[in-house]
Amino acid sequence: MSHAPGVSYAASLQSIRTARERIAPHVHVTPILTSRTLDQRAGRELFFKGECFQRVGAFKVRGAMNAVLSLSGVDAERGVVTHSSGNHAQALALAAKTRGIAAHVVMPETAPRVKRAAVEGYGARVVTCAPTLPAREETANRVAQETGAVLIPPFDHPDVISGQGTLALEILEQVPELDAIVMPLGGGGMLSGVAIAGKALKPSLRIIGVEPSGADEAARSRKAGERIALPAPKSVADGLLAGIGELTWPPVRDLADDVLVVDDDAILGAMRLVWERMKIVIEPSAATPVAALLERPELFGARRVAVVLSGGNVDLDALPF
Amino acid sequence: MSHAPGVSYAASLQSIRTARERIAPHVHVTPILTSRTLDQRAGRELFFKGECFQRVGAFKVRGAMNAVLSLSGVDAERGVVTHSSGNHAQALALAAKTRGIAAHVVMPETAPRVKRAAVEGYGARVVTCAPTLPAREETANRVAQETGAVLIPPFDHPDVISGQGTLALEILEQVPELDAIVMPLGGGGMLSGVAIAGKALKPSLRIIGVEPSGADEAARSRKAGERIALPAPKSVADGLLAGIGELTWPPVRDLADDVLVVDDDAILGAMRLVWERMKIVIEPSAATPVAALLERPELFGARRVAVVLSGGNVDLDALPF
Repeated sequence: MSHAPGVSYAASLQSIRTARERIAPHVHVTPILTSRTLDQRAGRELFFKGECFQRVGAFKVRGAMNAVLSLSGVDAERGVVTHSSGNHAQALALAAKTRGIAAHVVMPETAPRVKRAAVEGYGARVVTCAPTLPAREETANRVAQETGAVLIPPFDHPDVISGQGTLALEILEQVPELDAIVMPLGGGGMLSGVAIAGKALKPSLRIIGVEPSGADEAARSRKAGERIALPAPKSVADGLLAGIGELTWPPVRDLADDVLVVDDDAILGAMRLVWERMKIVIEPSAATPVAALLERPELFGARRVAVVLSGGNVDLDALPF
Repeated sequence: MSHAPGVSYAASLQSIRTARERIAPHVHVTPILTSRTLDQRAGRELFFKGECFQRVGAFKVRGAMNAVLSLSGVDAERGVVTHSSGNHAQALALAAKTRGIAAHVVMPETAPRVKRAAVEGYGARVVTCAPTLPAREETANRVAQETGAVLIPPFDHPDVISGQGTLALEILEQVPELDAIVMPLGGGGMLSGVAIAGKALKPSLRIIGVEPSGADEAARSRKAGERIALPAPKSVADGLLAGIGELTWPPVRDLADDVLVVDDDAILGAMRLVWERMKIVIEPSAATPVAALLERPELFGARRVAVVLSGGNVDLDALPF
């Protein structure tokens, strides 16, 4: 636990550095990509962190790998279980396969075909449930009780947050003199880890999260001063529908310099622009920070901005444009 | 001109090295990408040369830039003209803009919207014609006569061939101990340049071209021992419909170790696999070498193989799958 004045967070620069050493043999150091076109449109220098090229196609493998590799031998033998709309599911399945243990994955029936197939491809057992957060949590708890498996949730877990925070260590090494990191904001795991590591290493670094307007729990919660859950979040950015967690709320509340909100049309436009001009397949969730940069450039005082392209798992049979 | 026993080619290692110096300030050194999934499927180590990340989204800018920058001051002032199904058009438009001269581009009426928009975006004038090779050549010649512009054809030109050959210099620097380079084969400009430079630097390097079955002029010509033109080439790989040129025929005949043929289904399957697993937007033409590697791995004795992903310009409103 690290300590800001009066506040403790679920991860620290030290836990994030340890996570990086732990997961290094099993994850990629993803490339930084640039684009003249996008720079011109955003009016600043952008450094795209290509987590769509990460193993399993998304940054989620950082946190899942760190959590699974951190388990004691006794706990690991019990196997792991989670609920996830997709990328954390693949990530946990790969992490469990890497450690040679069982994985049970609770997925909503509505999860993209390609994501379910990938989870099964890593040897995990898929249990489907209704596409609501309560149904997912309930089913995951039931599977945990039945099998004895350890629950590794998608974001609200210290080791998951530390794993996602490794992104900040890499970005700050890859891009000198960075002014800000802009990233998608769903449950807040990435933002928490990146903010904790980023602010510790460089206090002037601006940390900005971007949410879809149909799932803007973080922006609403920050305005209210307390965690607010939306009854029915809805967005084309299917990886960002989760509400802020108990452990991710303090960093989202304290360490984010701004939380911006963009609508689905802007997300799809940004996604398309990245496909067309950068030739990179990103999923809608990954396009949210790009959408904010294109739509409201006046909100970004920063000159040199890293943009986390969080993942690239899309169902090519059901493209949203 | 370089000289194999009794044969002279339109480019040489020296002209290709000169081209590289000439175009270096204006083109990207594109990255080499790898994929465990693709390696497993192909049963060998693959090194993907990401020319989809090249300026204008395709390797064609190498040859066009070299040709335009090689013009004398007097010739340059006349402007340039070409006919192209797309990527050479964008490439010539950008090259002309870089040199500050006029460009006239003859495009088939059927060219993808995104390609035409890109050409116009670079400030070139587009003249449309019927989608046949004779109509394209005729229209380009007419525009050249009317405007005095210098014709820079898409592949059958010494400076274009030398420009494309710079690919081989980069690949051999980026991937040590390479056994083969596999690439799409249309008019033969890339294969000619890459083969001339590649064989000069490393005589053991295998050079393999891959054609769509609906436009397999090179394979037919090599079998016949003379250049054969197909009356109506047709393939989803719209960048590979041109026949072998007068200048590209000798290298395609002499220096290619093999020319393989794949059908459109295989091309589309390979394209989709690259999008899904590598998260890279490639166009059908770029998928032809991938298709050959996946379909007929037994034809590749080579262990370490570079694969040229030649371009990424696709119309997202008209995806072929």
